[in-house]
Amino acid sequence: MTDHAIVLLSGGLDSATTLALARDQGYECFALSFAYGQRHDAELAAAGRVATQMGVREHRTVALDLAAFGGSALTDPAIAVPTAPSTGIPVTYVPARNTIFLAYALAWAEVLPARDLFIGVNAIDYSGYPDCRPAFIEAFERLANLGTRAGVEGDGFCIHAPLIHWSKAEIIRCGLALGVDYGLTVSCYQADDTGAACGRCDACRLRAAGFIEAGVPDPTRYAPDA
Amino acid sequence: MTDHAIVLLSGGLDSATTLALARDQGYECFALSFAYGQRHDAELAAAGRVATQMGVREHRTVALDLAAFGGSALTDPAIAVPTAPSTGIPVTYVPARNTIFLAYALAWAEVLPARDLFIGVNAIDYSGYPDCRPAFIEAFERLANLGTRAGVEGDGFCIHAPLIHWSKAEIIRCGLALGVDYGLTVSCYQADDTGAACGRCDACRLRAAGFIEAGVPDPTRYAPDA
Repeated sequence: MTDHAIVLLSGGLDSATTLALARDQGYECFALSFAYGQRHDAELAAAGRVATQMGVREHRTVALDLAAFGGSALTDPAIAVPTAPSTGIPVTYVPARNTIFLAYALAWAEVLPARDLFIGVNAIDYSGYPDCRPAFIEAFERLANLGTRAGVEGDGFCIHAPLIHWSKAEIIRCGLALGVDYGLTVSCYQADDTGAACGRCDACRLRAAGFIEAGVPDPTRYAPDA
Repeated sequence: MTDHAIVLLSGGLDSATTLALARDQGYECFALSFAYGQRHDAELAAAGRVATQMGVREHRTVALDLAAFGGSALTDPAIAVPTAPSTGIPVTYVPARNTIFLAYALAWAEVLPARDLFIGVNAIDYSGYPDCRPAFIEAFERLANLGTRAGVEGDGFCIHAPLIHWSKAEIIRCGLALGVDYGLTVSCYQADDTGAACGRCDACRLRAAGFIEAGVPDPTRYAPDA
């Protein structure tokens, strides 16, 4: 029997690569996306395209209203997305986002059942979010195995973050080798409704630099004024 | 300035007592409830009554669809609520529920800001849920301080579980001393629309035994056929 895996799928470059890696490792993949009040909901359409291309067994999108709490440029229209590099944790950080996402993935995994959860966080070419670091992933795995029936009575959960120590260029090279079509993905924090990228935000800058470093053509579709 | 605290408020006996304790410790309290697809949504009405009686600064109810994942007698109508004691973790366990609840509380706390989160879990007179144990609470606090801006840059979060080592009778005596009106609360897993209790489920049995042991009148309103 093929093992099941839940893969968090934002529709961006990293999560698409993570899904390709999970599939390549032989897992039957269940993709989980979130409509969390983000500005860049074009990424949800991208997540659907990627899930289809990768042949996932099921793709669910959970609606949750993080915009009600605000506190981030990604969920609060009153906070502008920065277009220049910043120091420290940037205003695009969404409070407790990955904790909430992984908590939902854990609930689905326990019922499905799946014991392997994949998340495409990266702590190298990244925006400096605290919930993208190895210590956070390890702490969540520990929590998952203390707080669930499956963790207490069964084999327990493994949280896979296969990209965490990779550069953006390494991620891109790996994904291309596994058949990822990056033209389907959207990384931009403020993509327009068609998924065209701004070319100026942190996510756009990291992505563009990754394609250059990887030495491969960048399939990103930019907005006319980008 | 008064410190803010977020208190998870289900509308049951334990969370009402926890709110009273947080208020008694001088916190300005913000109550957080969840409409998670539970059978016993009469408890949400109870949460509203308790929040008002306790004079919280704000009471929010977040809708989240745990019933979409199922896997519990509390969220899946096809799984009956047991009316006799069971061994092990019972079918009323909701996968990853407290992980999800605390994750939302953390998001709100970070934005508010509040650094103190209160949850009325109890590991003595309880149903045996893994996410009610001290090790789970400690693991969540660790996660919270690794995965947030406030944890990394600021003073960090404290997860308070003041009832965790108390008997139900001790909880009731403490709550009465702090002015809790247990007639407002609903503990039953399958209360009817008016909040009347079944008298037979695990939650009803634990609650009734607590009032007897505490030696005080039980204000619970039972359904006619209870």
